[in-house]
Amino acid sequence: MINLTVGVDIGGTNSKYGIVDSHGKILQRGSIPTAKDGNVKSYIKSLASEIKSLQSNIKEENTITGIGIGAPNANFYKGTIEDAPNLSFNGTVPFVELMKNEFKEVEKVAITNDANAAAMGEMMYGGAKGMKNFIMITLGTGLGSGFVINGELLYGADGFAGELGHITVVPEGRMCGCGQLGHLENYCSATGMVRTAHELLAHHNASDSLLANKPFSKLTSKDIYQAALDGDEVAQQVFELTADILGQALASAVHIASPEAFFLFGGPIAAGNMIIKPVIESMENSLMNHFRNKVKVLPSKLKMGDAAILGASALVVK
Amino acid sequence: MINLTVGVDIGGTNSKYGIVDSHGKILQRGSIPTAKDGNVKSYIKSLASEIKSLQSNIKEENTITGIGIGAPNANFYKGTIEDAPNLSFNGTVPFVELMKNEFKEVEKVAITNDANAAAMGEMMYGGAKGMKNFIMITLGTGLGSGFVINGELLYGADGFAGELGHITVVPEGRMCGCGQLGHLENYCSATGMVRTAHELLAHHNASDSLLANKPFSKLTSKDIYQAALDGDEVAQQVFELTADILGQALASAVHIASPEAFFLFGGPIAAGNMIIKPVIESMENSLMNHFRNKVKVLPSKLKMGDAAILGASALVVK
Repeated sequence: MINLTVGVDIGGTNSKYGIVDSHGKILQRGSIPTAKDGNVKSYIKSLASEIKSLQSNIKEENTITGIGIGAPNANFYKGTIEDAPNLSFNGTVPFVELMKNEFKEVEKVAITNDANAAAMGEMMYGGAKGMKNFIMITLGTGLGSGFVINGELLYGADGFAGELGHITVVPEGRMCGCGQLGHLENYCSATGMVRTAHELLAHHNASDSLLANKPFSKLTSKDIYQAALDGDEVAQQVFELTADILGQALASAVHIASPEAFFLFGGPIAAGNMIIKPVIESMENSLMNHFRNKVKVLPSKLKMGDAAILGASALVVK
Repeated sequence: MINLTVGVDIGGTNSKYGIVDSHGKILQRGSIPTAKDGNVKSYIKSLASEIKSLQSNIKEENTITGIGIGAPNANFYKGTIEDAPNLSFNGTVPFVELMKNEFKEVEKVAITNDANAAAMGEMMYGGAKGMKNFIMITLGTGLGSGFVINGELLYGADGFAGELGHITVVPEGRMCGCGQLGHLENYCSATGMVRTAHELLAHHNASDSLLANKPFSKLTSKDIYQAALDGDEVAQQVFELTADILGQALASAVHIASPEAFFLFGGPIAAGNMIIKPVIESMENSLMNHFRNKVKVLPSKLKMGDAAILGASALVVK
């Protein structure tokens, strides 16, 4: 008899899930579209039936001891998803309770936001093994973060702590999806880089840039990386500016939380030292003396495709 | 037999100390000049002898169970004071060890920075009783902060966490004493207010302002408060700008740590609602929706003269 956990990653478009063994190996995995019609109950029924079907593929006798879920606007304390702008569910959804109804024999069902889940994954299976204080940064559409303090995820008073993407870095700066201005994620994320690219194209009137041939809605951080590799100056400047602001924000986070390390995850981190090296330089330049040369900035050791599932499953590992 | 604790507050000029009973009452108190010659050992000998002499004033049979110390650049983990710019001690001073040598019978000696000590005082004897997640903000020469998370002070990986005063709020902004630019404490502190006042005097060429009659080195936040009460527009604008930036920074802190409340302490807070009300407005305006109308911003309930001693003593209360 082996003990297994399940990790579920609920995204705006698709929901991915996997059955994970005690070594962090994903034995079975699958994906269904996330409900578009707001019908949580039928969506959870499908999800549960898919997971059970995956479980039946596993030859060895087994039991699922826990199900961990990563989702936007998830509240760990309450087990809910609350007003998630990218999901069709209205208001506050008691997600953990609904999942427990489908998996009555499972001991532990827990939910948190995707960046917190990634932090758990990094601590359990990635580069943060053995660390007690670190910060996970996920760069995608936005900038997510998970703060681990004394070996525990930081949830704060209401379960929603760890939103480094929403600290103000440019007073009266760019519009944020949350309604405020000048937040970190508006500059330092895949989307933020595309915004920076277009500001720079406009500033330099750079119609000869490699970035000038795609519309705003189509350009990706990967395009910018490729153009930078190909010597495009605008693209290279995007990386410099992104790294400058991110490094400065990481320094602010160090001043507050004094972590041992940051782990960076997500599409833009595929650029490796084109982003990480200048981030470290900018962070070090912005640190107070007694924090200098102490804090590591590392790429996540989790595989892109596995991280969300592993992270969610790590939530329920004892 | 009663159990007592000692609180010591080491400032750049004076060191204050008190003997505190289990109800948070300061039974005896005193003060000596902080060493100016860098001679830690003779300074600690004097401090210990003064404390022992105070103890002998107490009629009831008693024992000192712990000594808590608040000091700039104190490292709780190591029990040291490290490179404190306002103290004459060089390098790293093993302060806790030196105090233990003088008080061999005392069970617990601990040190932390003054803002962390104030946070402990607020939790033990002030407005944060029963709270698990709150942030103490002390406004003085700088801006100190103590983050309490799950009922514990946040120290981070190296013992120096909680420096909200050194997050960047104005990119490339005012010179900070730490060598960086645009940190929160350069705007939101007693000193920051004086700097803002002089920028505004210069901007408006306001030689008719009540603030225009004192040199830069003499103006205080109390003068600015009095002038604002007397209808001086520059002084009122200082409060508005200070509150704007502080409120925005508190919002960033909420996004990271999701506290139940902030407690504000220090000279500028004597202005009461002239500062607190606009800070709340600015914070609420800068918060993401799901944090709105949840987080309290309150004046500290600790008495100005008692806070540092009580806070330090609270460090060693079980």
